[in-house]
Amino acid sequence: MAKAIVLLSGGLDSAVALYLAKSKGYDVHAISFDYGQRHNRELNAAKALAEKTAVTAHQVVTLKLDQWGGSSLTDSTLEVEDGDVNREDIPVTYVPARNMVFLSVAASYAEAIGAQDIFIGVSEVDYSGYVDCRQEFIDAMEAAINKGTVMGAEKNQPIKIHAPFVDKTKAQEIALGMELGVDFGLTWSCYRGDEKPCGTCDSCLLRAKAFAKAGIEDPALQV
Amino acid sequence: MAKAIVLLSGGLDSAVALYLAKSKGYDVHAISFDYGQRHNRELNAAKALAEKTAVTAHQVVTLKLDQWGGSSLTDSTLEVEDGDVNREDIPVTYVPARNMVFLSVAASYAEAIGAQDIFIGVSEVDYSGYVDCRQEFIDAMEAAINKGTVMGAEKNQPIKIHAPFVDKTKAQEIALGMELGVDFGLTWSCYRGDEKPCGTCDSCLLRAKAFAKAGIEDPALQV
Repeated sequence: MAKAIVLLSGGLDSAVALYLAKSKGYDVHAISFDYGQRHNRELNAAKALAEKTAVTAHQVVTLKLDQWGGSSLTDSTLEVEDGDVNREDIPVTYVPARNMVFLSVAASYAEAIGAQDIFIGVSEVDYSGYVDCRQEFIDAMEAAINKGTVMGAEKNQPIKIHAPFVDKTKAQEIALGMELGVDFGLTWSCYRGDEKPCGTCDSCLLRAKAFAKAGIEDPALQV
Repeated sequence: MAKAIVLLSGGLDSAVALYLAKSKGYDVHAISFDYGQRHNRELNAAKALAEKTAVTAHQVVTLKLDQWGGSSLTDSTLEVEDGDVNREDIPVTYVPARNMVFLSVAASYAEAIGAQDIFIGVSEVDYSGYVDCRQEFIDAMEAAINKGTVMGAEKNQPIKIHAPFVDKTKAQEIALGMELGVDFGLTWSCYRGDEKPCGTCDSCLLRAKAFAKAGIEDPALQV
């Protein structure tokens, strides 16, 4: 069975990516990051999802991207602003080069265990304006991975980054997730990371809009 | 004064890179990694070098690449083999995708502080056969960084990776280091990380050969 790495934040996108990789028959090794995010509640969601899908391994990597601040997600002196789905500038929740760091560490893990497939649940469509969620970044990163690893550069075992939702809306993801049997009640999206989702941050707004569009009630809100 | 990030392992190459960046007038922010390396003695060397050169900031990032093993540098169940400067295969000291991970985190730091220059002391010439020390990897990584950061992808403030020694021998680096006043006595190269350099691992052999070629006695051995 081919091994795959799945980047598992514990949010909606990564949950669908996880179930998708499982449905394709991959031997899934999940990886999550404790990067100083204020919503580290999502790590509990990641653990619950990894357990529920019986992945082969789940690595939680500690990497404090909060030590130089720069984002309201990792810098407790900044506030998470309320969301605005029509915004065009870069929101303060942007964490510099986050997906690049995550994909690099995933590539290290992939090479250590001989996996040629990495799944990441980014989308260009319903996203918060993050540059590292675009296909052209994914392509550039895949090229770098295949120059910077022995598998890619010398062994002719190239590593592929799968971003199956890059051109999908979140509503489409949810519809796919329903088909795959994703337990959305286990996922966590809210950036503020209080006991219950705030309902007003960017991430909560995008999620609510997507569930509404998909015509499904968000099970995480049905408590 | 333009800010620069310098990847500072505490070894010979990164020390010369540090002094070079300082000599070019950059406002230097150094970054080192505690990645589970058995020779974490090199972090003391990094700290001493950062202090000696009075850098503006020195970040030591903890990132345990040892949690999935795969390298004798991070997996204590594997032995660091004796070096062989004529070897052609990939040595067991190779840490999967190490420079990719380091450069990604450096890019995150660069974007957080608005630095457009990153220095890394890799060399294609006198190296241990690592794929992530080659110019073509550096080029691919720079391209990925400029797709995956706001500075590169949206603000027209591209980030440049400087690898000034990529086509230099270690002996040439040492000669340059002498001109720049590098305190080589503060650097640490040995992979085994015991109290004194072992003299027989890959890293010790490459270093000894380079000092001999440069016609200089290694000050780190003069105790």
